[in-house]
Amino acid sequence: VITLLTDFGARDAFVGIMKGVILSRVGTVQLVDLCHGLAQGDRLGAAFQLRGALPFFPPETVHVVVVDPGVGTTRAILAVRLREQFLIVPDNGIVTPLLDGTEEVRAVDLARFALPSVSRTFHGRDVFAPAAAALAWGTSFADLGPVVEPGRDPALWPAPHAEPGALRGEVLHVDRFGNLISNLPGERVDPGSRVFLGDREIGPLRGSYSEVAPGSPLAILDSFELLEVAVRDGSAAEQLRAARGTPVTCRLPRDRDAGGRPVQNR
Amino acid sequence: VITLLTDFGARDAFVGIMKGVILSRVGTVQLVDLCHGLAQGDRLGAAFQLRGALPFFPPETVHVVVVDPGVGTTRAILAVRLREQFLIVPDNGIVTPLLDGTEEVRAVDLARFALPSVSRTFHGRDVFAPAAAALAWGTSFADLGPVVEPGRDPALWPAPHAEPGALRGEVLHVDRFGNLISNLPGERVDPGSRVFLGDREIGPLRGSYSEVAPGSPLAILDSFELLEVAVRDGSAAEQLRAARGTPVTCRLPRDRDAGGRPVQNR
Amino acid sequence: VITLLTDFGARDAFVGIMKGVILSRVGTVQLVDLCHGLAQGDRLGAAFQLRGALPFFPPETVHVVVVDPGVGTTRAILAVRLREQFLIVPDNGIVTPLLDGTEEVRAVDLARFALPSVSRTFHGRDVFAPAAAALAWGTSFADLGPVVEPGRDPALWPAPHAEPGALRGEVLHVDRFGNLISNLPGERVDPGSRVFLGDREIGPLRGSYSEVAPGSPLAILDSFELLEVAVRDGSAAEQLRAARGTPVTCRLPRDRDAGGRPVQNR
Repeated sequence: VITLLTDFGARDAFVGIMKGVILSRVGTVQLVDLCHGLAQGDRLGAAFQLRGALPFFPPETVHVVVVDPGVGTTRAILAVRLREQFLIVPDNGIVTPLLDGTEEVRAVDLARFALPSVSRTFHGRDVFAPAAAALAWGTSFADLGPVVEPGRDPALWPAPHAEPGALRGEVLHVDRFGNLISNLPGERVDPGSRVFLGDREIGPLRGSYSEVAPGSPLAILDSFELLEVAVRDGSAAEQLRAARGTPVTCRLPRDRDAGGRPVQNR
Repeated sequence: VITLLTDFGARDAFVGIMKGVILSRVGTVQLVDLCHGLAQGDRLGAAFQLRGALPFFPPETVHVVVVDPGVGTTRAILAVRLREQFLIVPDNGIVTPLLDGTEEVRAVDLARFALPSVSRTFHGRDVFAPAAAALAWGTSFADLGPVVEPGRDPALWPAPHAEPGALRGEVLHVDRFGNLISNLPGERVDPGSRVFLGDREIGPLRGSYSEVAPGSPLAILDSFELLEVAVRDGSAAEQLRAARGTPVTCRLPRDRDAGGRPVQNR
Repeated sequence: VITLLTDFGARDAFVGIMKGVILSRVGTVQLVDLCHGLAQGDRLGAAFQLRGALPFFPPETVHVVVVDPGVGTTRAILAVRLREQFLIVPDNGIVTPLLDGTEEVRAVDLARFALPSVSRTFHGRDVFAPAAAALAWGTSFADLGPVVEPGRDPALWPAPHAEPGALRGEVLHVDRFGNLISNLPGERVDPGSRVFLGDREIGPLRGSYSEVAPGSPLAILDSFELLEVAVRDGSAAEQLRAARGTPVTCRLPRDRDAGGRPVQNR
């Protein structure tokens, strides 16, 4: 299996051409489009989608990630072995949120794996695709290139901030339904919390969208174990005017003022 | 062959992740994207696309349909055997327009076929995909779960209404070209009819778009044997300001007033 | 390998249904979506994407091109053998920019290869897909139909215009990033040229996007060896208000007035 994750959109044949390069080298392979609708250069979006996808693919899958504003510079192209799968990804920090210390990272040897003629603007075709094909075709991971230390961008995926009575985070991703996915992991959210989006109280954690009336906001653990703010049968992003970066806070029930009202953060 | 039909759009890796679940269970399978551009929760759109697609897929094809606003509730997930093909579809009425009495409908046994951990918000990944993989991998249809009576929604796909001299229907679907596809089946449309969109006369049935001048409206039988109102080289939806639900009427030639003008419906 | 290139967009199951027709005839085949985001009837866009894709696909690949405003008329559907690959394409001039005199062109024999019932509006399903499946299944190219002379549209892909000190062309394509791809081939552009978009000077040819500051315009050879005007980390189409047809000119350094300023074209 080879998957493709890019910011190439649907207007051009870029993704199809990468598949042509792969199929010119590997006779038979399962090609899967992970997502091509990332915003231009959206490294956090790429990391977010990868984090969600990795647990559901079989061992030996090769994930090709082309979100690469630095194309044509000397930035390396990395091959990463991670939880029995492989990534081919630019060395621009995308991989930071996925690293857990068990990974092995190599810089793809361009002299051996790139196409004979490498363009200045489309390394997805000229380097990423042939490197992925090499892995799928049986090249051993160690032969892809020398071990390197990947560039890291710890700010890419902000960490939640815990304080007495509250866990503070922010919206990482707005999905197709307008659901707001935060950086607050389910295992750190107290089940008795009340959830706030900015200063607006959303309410307690719900078990399904249908627990509130159509058009009403709710908080729920999303399918990737992150806290999500949604609107049933509607778009939370539009209705609550939120976007990536909007603060999301979980407050504990004991964190109340004398009148029983939640303490607002002003 | 497994096909996927969803309202997941192109912003997220949801569809790719479903494919990862399938490929983790079935080594080799032909995966086909039927359509992922349905509006959020558009059950009629899902039924419309399925009706068009079924006749063109080989026997044993499994069609996975995730248009599922009730995700996380107790609504069943159905496995349907229909004309030598299979559907995995939520029990929310989508299947109503496809049933002809020859089908066999079962409720997927979650205990046997769902992923070990089922989320509240993404049953496409956690139930639909593994159930489809089970079918493709050779599980017999009868083993998927008990026979059930599917929920029906007869209003989902409105029936045409016949009256003396006229057959009345409405727009079901606006396609990518702005063509307006109605619920009037070709076999019920008199070839001598004149077609009206709302109160506006479109004209007689045409044999191809090229029978009218560019920019002109026309009526034609579409490729799925439904009456279509189009604009040559243009968008009927925009130019004629029509949408799903706009009335479409076929009037017989004998239905004319003394002056030979069509009788208007006022 | 069978690829599909259409203006069908993402709202309908048209592409999926074509795949169903192919898979009903050919058990196992690699299906690749080249691009389905072409504007309605955009023949130049189809030719542009094909020109870029062909060099990267393996021999015997069949490319199915459905950009076909003349569907339902008597225009032929062509099968073209070109550089060891095959095209199935309407006879509407799309193929003109790809022909080099080595090709063999035949008209698909509808009586033998079309579906039993051919609609007026969806020949992609009823003719193109079964013809492609026949090729993939082993039908010899010569059996597809009689040799014909394809219709040619020399104006579809305008040729650059050379004059003393300048090479004049225009924008052919705006890609997903807003990059403006011109009809000026790299081998005809003097490396010392200064590039103009309309009357605006963009500057010299650059080697990578990163040679200019974020937000600044630049000229570069794109990955298909055509001159491109881009904005680093931005959209040249939006920022420079350009579109298909906007003039692009390369001026030689010697083409300067007494003050050393580039001669403007007024």
